[in-house]
Amino acid sequence: MLTYSFENIGPEPLYLHLYKCIKNDILDGVLPSGTKLPSKRSFAKNLGISNITVENAYAQLQAEGFIYSIPKKGFYVTELPENMPLTSDGHITSEAGRIAAGSIMEEEAQCKIDLVSNMTPPANFPFSIWAKLMREIISEKSGELMKKSPWGGIMELRSAISLHLKQFRNMDVAPEQIITGAGTEYLYTLIIQLLGYNKVYAVENPGYKKVAQIYKSNNVTCEYIPVGSSGIVIEELEKRNADVAHISPSHHYPTGIITPVSRRYEILAWASRKKGRYIIEDDYDSEFRLEGKPVPTLQGIDIMESVIYINTFTKSLAPTIRISYMVLPWKLLKIFYNKLSFYSCTVSNFEQYTLARFINNGYFEKHINRMRNYYRNVRDRLMDEIKKSRLSDICEISEEGSGLHFLLKIHTEIPDSEYVEICRQNNINVSCLSQYYMEDNVNYKVYGEAKGKGSIQQKQAEDIKECNNRQHIIIMNYSGIRMEDVKETVSLLCKSSGLAG
Amino acid sequence: MLTYSFENIGPEPLYLHLYKCIKNDILDGVLPSGTKLPSKRSFAKNLGISNITVENAYAQLQAEGFIYSIPKKGFYVTELPENMPLTSDGHITSEAGRIAAGSIMEEEAQCKIDLVSNMTPPANFPFSIWAKLMREIISEKSGELMKKSPWGGIMELRSAISLHLKQFRNMDVAPEQIITGAGTEYLYTLIIQLLGYNKVYAVENPGYKKVAQIYKSNNVTCEYIPVGSSGIVIEELEKRNADVAHISPSHHYPTGIITPVSRRYEILAWASRKKGRYIIEDDYDSEFRLEGKPVPTLQGIDIMESVIYINTFTKSLAPTIRISYMVLPWKLLKIFYNKLSFYSCTVSNFEQYTLARFINNGYFEKHINRMRNYYRNVRDRLMDEIKKSRLSDICEISEEGSGLHFLLKIHTEIPDSEYVEICRQNNINVSCLSQYYMEDNVNYKVYGEAKGKGSIQQKQAEDIKECNNRQHIIIMNYSGIRMEDVKETVSLLCKSSGLAG
Repeated sequence: MLTYSFENIGPEPLYLHLYKCIKNDILDGVLPSGTKLPSKRSFAKNLGISNITVENAYAQLQAEGFIYSIPKKGFYVTELPENMPLTSDGHITSEAGRIAAGSIMEEEAQCKIDLVSNMTPPANFPFSIWAKLMREIISEKSGELMKKSPWGGIMELRSAISLHLKQFRNMDVAPEQIITGAGTEYLYTLIIQLLGYNKVYAVENPGYKKVAQIYKSNNVTCEYIPVGSSGIVIEELEKRNADVAHISPSHHYPTGIITPVSRRYEILAWASRKKGRYIIEDDYDSEFRLEGKPVPTLQGIDIMESVIYINTFTKSLAPTIRISYMVLPWKLLKIFYNKLSFYSCTVSNFEQYTLARFINNGYFEKHINRMRNYYRNVRDRLMDEIKKSRLSDICEISEEGSGLHFLLKIHTEIPDSEYVEICRQNNINVSCLSQYYMEDNVNYKVYGEAKGKGSIQQKQAEDIKECNNRQHIIIMNYSGIRMEDVKETVSLLCKSSGLAG
Repeated sequence: MLTYSFENIGPEPLYLHLYKCIKNDILDGVLPSGTKLPSKRSFAKNLGISNITVENAYAQLQAEGFIYSIPKKGFYVTELPENMPLTSDGHITSEAGRIAAGSIMEEEAQCKIDLVSNMTPPANFPFSIWAKLMREIISEKSGELMKKSPWGGIMELRSAISLHLKQFRNMDVAPEQIITGAGTEYLYTLIIQLLGYNKVYAVENPGYKKVAQIYKSNNVTCEYIPVGSSGIVIEELEKRNADVAHISPSHHYPTGIITPVSRRYEILAWASRKKGRYIIEDDYDSEFRLEGKPVPTLQGIDIMESVIYINTFTKSLAPTIRISYMVLPWKLLKIFYNKLSFYSCTVSNFEQYTLARFINNGYFEKHINRMRNYYRNVRDRLMDEIKKSRLSDICEISEEGSGLHFLLKIHTEIPDSEYVEICRQNNINVSCLSQYYMEDNVNYKVYGEAKGKGSIQQKQAEDIKECNNRQHIIIMNYSGIRMEDVKETVSLLCKSSGLAG
């Protein structure tokens, strides 16, 4: 049986001394987890102390979680977290916690040039206007600012968005159909709750890995559907029993593909063939189409109430202002109201009112136009510099017409992962098309076997060949590049490609 | 076979005319869903037009979702949404949509006096300071404002919160352990993703129905655990196989119960008995304890890394600023980092920086102290008015010491639901304790049968008796009541209780 000395313990109460002795033995591993402690009575007798002293010590140990009791059996040592360094009062120290938790705090070191992150260069954000509007709102709307926002967001903002959608996308949407939220990621999780956990959600492959991550993290089935040269492959949607297709037909990331109207109608037809099928249309950077006519949205040509349209101000205004929105068909809106309107709106009233005024006073349109010019200039300058550089001998540019990135195919033997790393060492952060492919596209390749010229199969096989060809292609996401950094961007790419620049 | 006339159709293309004829028949129900359309060739022959004309008409109909094709079989009429009124271009009209969706737009009419909603009276929010800090932040931090926030929030805010927790709650928490989010509701959904979908989540009964709604909406098992006079009943947690207990030990809503220290240790002991058990400690209005010593948090006495602490600025600052936070134990923080740090922070940088400065410059502490005084005065005034009124003959006040509500038991025969309705008609919005009980507390009652005096069973039976006694109890949530409305509040309550006032 355990034995502890009670000599020379000074004025410390007996029970506290006993408590400390046992606690130390537990922390030192002398008493490993699961060890049964002696019964109170026999332990007291053995140590020559009173029952109540042992009882008090055990109570303290139990209270702090070092031991637990099983009724009618006794007390046992708890399993402690591994390698748990404690402060004097039994807590894990911050330092030890940090070490145990790993290098959580190490945010990725930033490269000087960043072609991956979506950042708005500070010079491009209309700070003074935003500050002015915020000030106006605070002084004029104190009452409204303290009043709970309706679940879909304040009506001023939703009306403003509705007008914006009419002007920019020719969409007829009532303000009530618009639901705002703190980022598209949050809206996706609402959509899952709206449409159901038993549905199969299909995402684009290649595509944003985050979208798939969100579906998986929310415990729903997620299928990767190949994207061919005309957008998502419908036959694969059927084959994988998809119920919900999450797509970006107006500007696919990262391939830059714009789904032609014929394929759009095929997608709508797919949705209409079976009850409960839905399309999530992610129209994330449609404001920045730099050339050609705007492509109509799926939402605009859908009359079956099967399209949920999503867009965000994080791309068009600033990624650090978390305001996104979705447009629900009336039928789904009613379900949303019944099932999910208990959720509070996640966007602060202050920013909702400020953004509403920013749109209503015409600042947003001006901002978009200014940014479109700016981006066009950056893109042109960037392509220009590339053409003037030695990079031009070994590269091709494509998909430069829409949105805020283009593709740069480099003729090189360096594998993509290695190339990205070389770039990183040269202080430039890039990503390659191949990094956006999800793992399990085996089916996809098998599926692509041709079955005769001119057939659907052959057309799709061509799609696939084109996809598989996409190696050594850098995604030139230039939205965060300042004009003055363009030259260095190209020079660093030259350097990373083994060219003198 | 279908026959349409092509006479007198003017300059309209043949295919368009045919398309319109068929579409009208579909909308009018002449061609019900599932009807097989004639084959292109035979239809063309029958109508005396070319194959290509029929083909074009069918293509248009298919594109718009009115018909669908089954390969090698033909074209069929789609099932249209019921009662779908359309605009001239085939869209559901806003008006019709609104009608079909029901009275979604009708936000609940607001009563003059509101004892239910959590509103900050505008006069109590420090608008001028907030505006000043926002202006400072915008002029000083343009670079930081455009830089993506780390997944847990910007470090300035997390450090400020860490200090605040030390000062107000004596909690030792590293800034890295703090994760900010746009409201506690959002944080709950992150916790589900963190702890898992296969766990049983236990909520308090009575309690906030919204918490249970969120768990259910996120497709996890949710059990209602009775709250006795000392807080949640541990034995019920065991019995229902709960893995995660979502509780508010410092101030239970709506009973106002403060879980005593002994029960707190029992809850921690419950968590330590089995791997994978966690406690979500919702400390939502701890800043506003109006009397007595502050109660230590579970987080502060937990050394097993089993407590997730949650708090929010929506109660302490304004419900329309959506900033909440949770404190994760290091072990869970590491898992969060690996599994969920791909999510962007949902709070805007502008408000994160402003709030950080608000706390760091001492404004938050001042605000809390000012509000605590204010609330104490409102509460005292309210209790005073009640005592002076005829209500005092038929009521008792309890649980007035902590947080922003107290209980008012009224001796009346009017059922709670009816009483609430009478109040509403009198322009005062109230809720009753009984409304916070979840439906299925049958087990709870059976379980509560006494089994001998002094036994745990008997103690719990007493708990339950007390709970069942809680009828005709109004929750006096006075956080949104202005001082000048106190008199009217009491007078309206008198009126609703059938008293002259």
